[in-house]
Amino acid sequence: MKKNSAVFKSDVNFKFACNKTLPSIELVYETYGEINADKTNAVLVCHAFSGSHEAAGLTSDGNKTGWWDEIIGPGKAIDTEKYFVVSVNNLGSCYGSSGPKSMIMETNEPYGSKFPDVCVLDWVNSQKLLMDELEIDCWEMVAGGSLGGMQALQWAVSYPEKIKRSAIIAATAQTSPQNIALNEVARQIIRKDSSFNNGEYISHNTTPKEGLKTARMLGHITYLSETNIQRRFGRKKQAPGTKVAEEVNFEIENYLQYKGDQFSEFFDANSYILMTKAMDEYNLADQFDGSMSEALERIKSKLLIISFTSDWLFPSWHSRRLQKDCILYDVESSFIELEGSYGHDSFLFASPEYSKILKTFLGS
Amino acid sequence: MKKNSAVFKSDVNFKFACNKTLPSIELVYETYGEINADKTNAVLVCHAFSGSHEAAGLTSDGNKTGWWDEIIGPGKAIDTEKYFVVSVNNLGSCYGSSGPKSMIMETNEPYGSKFPDVCVLDWVNSQKLLMDELEIDCWEMVAGGSLGGMQALQWAVSYPEKIKRSAIIAATAQTSPQNIALNEVARQIIRKDSSFNNGEYISHNTTPKEGLKTARMLGHITYLSETNIQRRFGRKKQAPGTKVAEEVNFEIENYLQYKGDQFSEFFDANSYILMTKAMDEYNLADQFDGSMSEALERIKSKLLIISFTSDWLFPSWHSRRLQKDCILYDVESSFIELEGSYGHDSFLFASPEYSKILKTFLGS
Repeated sequence: MKKNSAVFKSDVNFKFACNKTLPSIELVYETYGEINADKTNAVLVCHAFSGSHEAAGLTSDGNKTGWWDEIIGPGKAIDTEKYFVVSVNNLGSCYGSSGPKSMIMETNEPYGSKFPDVCVLDWVNSQKLLMDELEIDCWEMVAGGSLGGMQALQWAVSYPEKIKRSAIIAATAQTSPQNIALNEVARQIIRKDSSFNNGEYISHNTTPKEGLKTARMLGHITYLSETNIQRRFGRKKQAPGTKVAEEVNFEIENYLQYKGDQFSEFFDANSYILMTKAMDEYNLADQFDGSMSEALERIKSKLLIISFTSDWLFPSWHSRRLQKDCILYDVESSFIELEGSYGHDSFLFASPEYSKILKTFLGS
Repeated sequence: MKKNSAVFKSDVNFKFACNKTLPSIELVYETYGEINADKTNAVLVCHAFSGSHEAAGLTSDGNKTGWWDEIIGPGKAIDTEKYFVVSVNNLGSCYGSSGPKSMIMETNEPYGSKFPDVCVLDWVNSQKLLMDELEIDCWEMVAGGSLGGMQALQWAVSYPEKIKRSAIIAATAQTSPQNIALNEVARQIIRKDSSFNNGEYISHNTTPKEGLKTARMLGHITYLSETNIQRRFGRKKQAPGTKVAEEVNFEIENYLQYKGDQFSEFFDANSYILMTKAMDEYNLADQFDGSMSEALERIKSKLLIISFTSDWLFPSWHSRRLQKDCILYDVESSFIELEGSYGHDSFLFASPEYSKILKTFLGS
């Protein structure tokens, strides 16, 4: 599989939906496969909250594969022998695109908590700049899970002429207050870490690692399903001598602490806050004075809406509601609830059915 | 309704299941109604994680009612015109019974994190001491929700001759790893509060209020249901000027911060850790070398097992599993899943059906 990593720099003022402006933005991205002569085989994949542009193949640190490697590659659901796949790190994230860790040119200080509030529409608008740079006229498909699915939906609404298919997976057109509540707990955990320093931890030479760790532990639970945790860990006790901390009794506790610790090594606390706020604020109809019909009637692409049985973070009723609205407002769409025991994370893992559905949709 | 508050002091060594011993224990308790001449009308109600002995009537601060006031009282499901109801604050809690805030006699220092690990069996054993003190030979019913339901089940197993009916509501015979995971996040939040001082915050003159607050915010979400949050708060924004903190956008965030803050004013952090650990450790079969048949075959009382449709902390499959085991091992039991939109908290609120079922069971 041909794979490229690149940085796109836009020196035009970038205006965020919150009305703030940055004089320039940078987006790191990867591409997989090759673009054809008339540039009609391009697919955009959008990452979820803590994902990055590294969607397929080995990651840059060499010891993992990209978050959608089971879906993207030669012969896979998104076949890189046929399609040219673009994957961008979102604005406000911490993997290289402009975000809180970027420097303010004038002061040579990091933006920190002063980075503009981002939203799903900002991501789509910034991806559109990259699309123009790559001289792609129309995406064959925009696809993503979770926060990535919201971007796929937003593309269909914001740039109806620029997208043929939108695959909206384990996502919603309107984040639920339960999700907002869980995100707020995570943010509160981070804010109350004494190393957070109101978001200016870089200037203070501190890192709110403990806060990030605990916030991730909570997030991690919400990405799994009760069944999955039960089957994988059950009530097994952590063997003495293998505990990450003295206070740990059960394997599930040890696992969460371990994974949370890893996460806190690389993720940025301000990005955590920004990205979860973007998720909370997502309500498609809000952009059209509360009118879902106005939003959906703009769509010209086909929609594929997928949910998973064991996903309790974005349960199927979100997808069902979107499908109902699509039927009401005459959008060509299919909704399917798939079996998936990994909870919300099910969207990451290929199954024969899931892969075939994506492949058929993309080839339709 | 005749109501009494009292303190029971036992000066006999109290041995915990963890093998530690206290030279004496104190239990604060309330009683509602009057005991009959032959003491055959006594009911024990057991509280959940953060509950107290104040189950019915006005609470001692005068501005609330007890946690089961909708169920206990004249003419209510547990009718205080007919029954004498006993409600005890659990060992290890922080409402007056012996717990981490109690003083070690020799040193005149609080136990703090050195208070013995408590478990459901310890609570039942301590309640048995009070039962003897009150010269009650047999409970007409032991009833409770959540952690209180585990005590009701434990009573049936540990003291089969001393209980006629056990009402096990929104509970389980074996805490799930998802619950353990959520509890561990809450504990981690508390431990990482810089005022926690490894549990010795009283000696350090600090209080881990922020940790308690955030832990409660998480707990609070798990006690509600997605539907309930959706209906009650939706995506309504908190009006400017009414926000508890600048970072709050949505009503649900404001509400959780407010309630968390209140909770942190009175609850004890070491009790939080002790009580959630007791919940995590609960696995009835463990006490009988993993044999559920051995546990259940001891039971001589009738069981009523109730779950609620919207409870995702102790979902109905826990109750269904217990009912299946009861049928397998010949325990007289009924299981019913009730409609209840309050999530786990549904057990606190009377509905005509729920009340009638409890009343009928108690009168049977």
